[in-house]
Amino acid sequence: MTNELTKGLTNALTDTPNPGQRVRILTGVKPSGSLHLGNYFGAILPSVVESKRQQSEVILMCVDLHALTNRAQIREAGEHTNPLLAAYLALGFETAGNSIILQSEFPQILEIAWYLACVTNVGLLERAHAYKDAVANGKDPTCGLFYYPVLMASDILTFAAEQVPVGKDQAQHLEYASDMAGYFNSAVGSEVLRKPKPVIQDVPLIVGIDGERKMSKSYNNEIPIFGAPTVIEKRIKSITTDARGLDDPKDPDTCAIFQILKTFASAQRIEDMRERLLRGKGYGYGHAKGDLIDAHRETFGAHQALYEHYIQNPSELNKLLGPGRERAQQIASATRDRARDALGLKSTARLS
Amino acid sequence: MTNELTKGLTNALTDTPNPGQRVRILTGVKPSGSLHLGNYFGAILPSVVESKRQQSEVILMCVDLHALTNRAQIREAGEHTNPLLAAYLALGFETAGNSIILQSEFPQILEIAWYLACVTNVGLLERAHAYKDAVANGKDPTCGLFYYPVLMASDILTFAAEQVPVGKDQAQHLEYASDMAGYFNSAVGSEVLRKPKPVIQDVPLIVGIDGERKMSKSYNNEIPIFGAPTVIEKRIKSITTDARGLDDPKDPDTCAIFQILKTFASAQRIEDMRERLLRGKGYGYGHAKGDLIDAHRETFGAHQALYEHYIQNPSELNKLLGPGRERAQQIASATRDRARDALGLKSTARLS
Repeated sequence: MTNELTKGLTNALTDTPNPGQRVRILTGVKPSGSLHLGNYFGAILPSVVESKRQQSEVILMCVDLHALTNRAQIREAGEHTNPLLAAYLALGFETAGNSIILQSEFPQILEIAWYLACVTNVGLLERAHAYKDAVANGKDPTCGLFYYPVLMASDILTFAAEQVPVGKDQAQHLEYASDMAGYFNSAVGSEVLRKPKPVIQDVPLIVGIDGERKMSKSYNNEIPIFGAPTVIEKRIKSITTDARGLDDPKDPDTCAIFQILKTFASAQRIEDMRERLLRGKGYGYGHAKGDLIDAHRETFGAHQALYEHYIQNPSELNKLLGPGRERAQQIASATRDRARDALGLKSTARLS
Repeated sequence: MTNELTKGLTNALTDTPNPGQRVRILTGVKPSGSLHLGNYFGAILPSVVESKRQQSEVILMCVDLHALTNRAQIREAGEHTNPLLAAYLALGFETAGNSIILQSEFPQILEIAWYLACVTNVGLLERAHAYKDAVANGKDPTCGLFYYPVLMASDILTFAAEQVPVGKDQAQHLEYASDMAGYFNSAVGSEVLRKPKPVIQDVPLIVGIDGERKMSKSYNNEIPIFGAPTVIEKRIKSITTDARGLDDPKDPDTCAIFQILKTFASAQRIEDMRERLLRGKGYGYGHAKGDLIDAHRETFGAHQALYEHYIQNPSELNKLLGPGRERAQQIASATRDRARDALGLKSTARLS
C-alpha cells in the first residue's frame, strides 16, 4: 500500500537519534466526520505504515475531547468515534505493539493538563493561533477552545511521546508542549515531563473534487474512503477538469483526477495514468475518472466489508483495542504518578 | 461545642425545600496553611455541626487542585493536606453518612470541568473577580487561575450539591456554576446537571491579634487551633487592646479578646467574660487573656492528641475516610456517566 510519497513521509517520521530502541510516536485524530481521501493520505496511511515498523510504537489517539470545543457540534464527536476506529483497523493498522485509544478514556490527560495550566501564564494561550483566529473572526470562543492547547500539550506529555508528526499549522502546539514541560519541570525542580521532538510533516495538500481547494468535508469536495459504490462513483465523476479534449495531451500536475489518484493508488496505476494523460489520443478525463473509480475500488473495496463488520460488532473492536489500551493506561498512569509525586500531592487512597 | 453564633449558621444552612430528605451540602477547604481560629469559626465548626445532623449529608472536600494555581506555592498544597484532614476528624467531624475527600482523587471533576468549558464562553471567565483582580494588580496569572471558576463549578455540579455555603466574596462562583449547568443542559438537551442553591453565609469576620484586621495567615495575626501551648499562649498574650486600666469597665464589642473568645468558647465562658469586662473592677485585659488561654485549652486541648495521632497514623486516617470516599466516588461517577451519555461519547472499554 506504500508508494513514493508515503516512503518519504515514513523516513522523516522514524529519523530517530536512538536506533535500536522503539520510538514512541503519538498521533491524534479528530472524530469529526466520515473519513475521506484527504484523511487517508495525510493521517491514516502514515500511521498504518508506521504501525507495521518494528522501530516504532504508535499511539493513535481518537481525540474525542478536542472534538467538543465547538458547542454547536458537541454531540457529533461520539457518532464519528466507532467509524474512525473501525476504519484504522480495517485499513491495516497493526495493533500488536501499538495502540488505538480514545482520549476520553484517559483521565490522566485532564489531570496533567491541570498541572500544566497551573505553571503556564495565561498570556501564552491568548497568543495561540486558533484562539486568535476565532476572536479575529468575531466569534465568542468557548473556554474549551481557549484551554485546548493545554489539553493538547498534555496529550503529548502524558504519553511521553518522542515524536509527534504534525502539519505546519500545528507546529505551535508542539512548541507549547515543550514550553509547558519546561515550566512544570522547573516548578517542581525535576525532569518529570519529557519534551517531544516535533516532526513537521510537509504533507502536500490533496485537492478536492472542485479541483481547487484542499479536500475537506467543510468544502463538501471530498471523496469518501468507504461508502456505497454509487456514491463514490458520483463524487469521482463530478471532479472538475479543464476543457482539453479526448485526444489532447493533458498535464498530470494540474489534473485533479491524477493528483487524487497518486495519493493512494499502486505505483503501476499511477505510472499508467500519467503516461496516458500525457499522451492523450483517446484517453479523456472520462477515462481517467473510470480508472480512478477502479483504483479506489482496488485499494479500499476489499476493506469495506471489514470496516462494516467492526462497526456492527463493537465487542470485537473492543477486543482488538484492549491490549493497546492497557499499555497506554500504564504509560499515562506512570506519568500522572510522577507528576503527583513531584508536586507532593497526598493521596488518601494510597495512605496505608 | 455549639453556641449562639453557630446555631444561626446551621439554621441557615439546612433551610431546605425538601424536609424529610437529606440535603447534600458541599464545602471546599483549601489546604493552604496550618489551621487557625478564623478557619475554625468560619469553616470547620459549621461543617462539624452540620455533619452531626440527620437532615444533611456533608461532603467536605480538601481542594488540593485549587491550591496549585499559585505557581510559587505549588508544592505546598500536599504538605497541608494531612493536617487539614486530621484536624476535621479530631474536631469531631462525623464520618458516618458524610464524606471527607481529596479533590485530586476525583478525576471526574476535571472531566466534567472540560465539558463545562466546552459550553461556556471565554468572556465569562474574563469577568471573574479573582482573575480581574490579578490582572488589575499587574500580575501575569496562570491558566490555572483563569480556568479555576470552571473547576469550582465542576466541584459543585459533579457532586450534585444542593447547598453550597459560601461567603459573599464567593457568590459569583455559585452563579457561574448555575450558569454552566444551564449551558450544558441546554447544549445536550436534557437536565443532566443540577443547579445548586447558593447559601450565602454572613459569617462575621474574626479579628486577628492585631485587633484590627481579619484573622489570616497572610497578616500573621492568627491564633493556631493546634500547637505547642507556649506558642498559643504567646499569641494570645500579644493581642492588642486599648488603654483601659484594671478597674475600668471595658466594652466587649470592641475588645479583640472577647471577640475571639466568643467564636469558640462555651456559652458560660462567653457570658462570664462579658460580665467581667463590663464590670471592670480588678478584671484587666491580662485576666481576660488568661481566660482566653484557658478557654482555648478547654475547647481544643483534648483534641490535640487525637489530631497528632491521625497525622502519625495515616493508615488510620485512611480507614476512617474510606467509606465516605467510596460514596462520593459513586456520586461523581454517576454524574460523569450521565454527562458522557448525554454528549454521546463512546467508550471502547464499555463497548462489549
